[in-house]
Amino acid sequence: MARSFSSAVALAGGVGGAKLAHGLQMALPEGGLTVVVNTGDDFSLWGLHISPDLDTVMYTLAGLANPVQGWGLEGDSWQGLEMMARYGRDAWFRLGDMDMVTHVLRTQTLREGRTLTEVTADLASSLGIKSHILPMCDQQVETVVKTAQGELDFQDYFVRRRHADRVESVLFRGIETAHPSAQVEQAISSAPAIVFCPSNPIVSIGPILALPGMTGALKASKAPKIAVSPIVGGAALKGPAADMLQSLGHDVSPYGVASIYAGIIDGMIIDTVDARYAPAIRDMGIEVEISDTIMKSDADRRALAETALRFSERIAQI
Amino acid sequence: MARSFSSAVALAGGVGGAKLAHGLQMALPEGGLTVVVNTGDDFSLWGLHISPDLDTVMYTLAGLANPVQGWGLEGDSWQGLEMMARYGRDAWFRLGDMDMVTHVLRTQTLREGRTLTEVTADLASSLGIKSHILPMCDQQVETVVKTAQGELDFQDYFVRRRHADRVESVLFRGIETAHPSAQVEQAISSAPAIVFCPSNPIVSIGPILALPGMTGALKASKAPKIAVSPIVGGAALKGPAADMLQSLGHDVSPYGVASIYAGIIDGMIIDTVDARYAPAIRDMGIEVEISDTIMKSDADRRALAETALRFSERIAQI
Repeated sequence: MARSFSSAVALAGGVGGAKLAHGLQMALPEGGLTVVVNTGDDFSLWGLHISPDLDTVMYTLAGLANPVQGWGLEGDSWQGLEMMARYGRDAWFRLGDMDMVTHVLRTQTLREGRTLTEVTADLASSLGIKSHILPMCDQQVETVVKTAQGELDFQDYFVRRRHADRVESVLFRGIETAHPSAQVEQAISSAPAIVFCPSNPIVSIGPILALPGMTGALKASKAPKIAVSPIVGGAALKGPAADMLQSLGHDVSPYGVASIYAGIIDGMIIDTVDARYAPAIRDMGIEVEISDTIMKSDADRRALAETALRFSERIAQI
Repeated sequence: MARSFSSAVALAGGVGGAKLAHGLQMALPEGGLTVVVNTGDDFSLWGLHISPDLDTVMYTLAGLANPVQGWGLEGDSWQGLEMMARYGRDAWFRLGDMDMVTHVLRTQTLREGRTLTEVTADLASSLGIKSHILPMCDQQVETVVKTAQGELDFQDYFVRRRHADRVESVLFRGIETAHPSAQVEQAISSAPAIVFCPSNPIVSIGPILALPGMTGALKASKAPKIAVSPIVGGAALKGPAADMLQSLGHDVSPYGVASIYAGIIDGMIIDTVDARYAPAIRDMGIEVEISDTIMKSDADRRALAETALRFSERIAQI
């Protein structure tokens, strides 16, 4: 049966989410994809507003992402960072010379009074992206990680300390007074399908879901909502998701991820190596699709996106 | 007779001024040089506060300046500028990847409420500079050039339009409410010698002299005040000084420059090729020293600085 969805909404964090979003962009008609992106990792460095997940999604959808590391720009250089070090600045955040320009322009236009939603649309459009990249909100939300060393800002925990600390809890500072933007609300309410990308369920999809009104909006939507498990074979493909799930008392498996999303999602795609978790996930009332989920190539991204869209259509017809 | 000055103040604009300042830094004991720098060329680009003359002086005194072009940093790259173009931004100002960092840090610390004087001292000190680099003031002054095309911001005239327009007049917007910083006043009043570097007398030294109280402070100082002519053999070594002098009705010669500084300076160093102007300049009551003034090497810079200091001492003894 041919797919009929002409559009979809994806919820995404950084690298893993960006890859599936890229697949969905390839699979859907031009302009059909809307990506709602985590901004809990946003932070200020040297006076610049940095939005790591927005940038990863934007660079990936523009075809400019560094194919090896997944974040940053292909062919970027580090001369500015060397100058920072010369000025005695602690250059722990790997900010490339081309990447810096994104932050400079974002900071400039935010200071001119435009919203992060407007600024993001403008930057993405300049890079020729036809998909819609939406920050989850226009208010400041800060993901803070509580560890034995105390509270750490997310980038401090994630980049500077290389996510080596055991996470005791996670909080999203400012989330109570934040809310999904009108564009996000509109996208969710009109989406024929909603895909939770294989991003960290705690600190990437977590802040999006924690926005006041967001789970209500998702539940109110009649669209099939499916998630792609970011945990494959007991590990995260990238980042601290596995350690974080474990230290927060979740099962480090698609089942653990499904239990976080239970009550919101209708279906989950799990990797073939995790097929044994399907019955337990189905017992939670969540449909399961078993598929290869590791995206090494553009073809893998597109194939997984096609699987996600077909699975969504099947759920819509139940 | 050996020189005895252990310190001096230089007034400087960009490349030519920075070269002599560098010579003075070499000739004087460590920490003995204070450079008062034009900020009329400062402008905002992509939300960044750019101070071209401060940067040229700072990079030159730090030994980091591009030796070929005189401005910018040796070994800088242009990846960020290519990204700007990708974002559809007009990249007419040649802002290098390392140079960008200077503007980012300056902008950040200015936004934190520190003065340009404090920010400049901090940046220069981070680069290991022992000399004191002082912006002429902490208020915004904008050099505006009136041409047949209308009023042009200085960088627009100078960089974007490559100073091809005939200049009808020059104004320093905001100068009435600006004033020399306390640090500049202190430096002028306590200087044993004051050297006007071979910078453009209209748009580099001009804004410094136009600051309310500045010529009064210079005249009140008992220090010998000497200028090095930026015009050699009827031309400026760099930039639009010659065309500008001519279109504003000045003689394009050391005599023309001397007539602008008359009443303020006590002496002037002119190039050997311009020796014939000495009598006319002396007739204005200005002592003249004839010397090679073209600085091709570090040794040239130091030699001219030594000449300037010896000339100042001779004037002090008159």
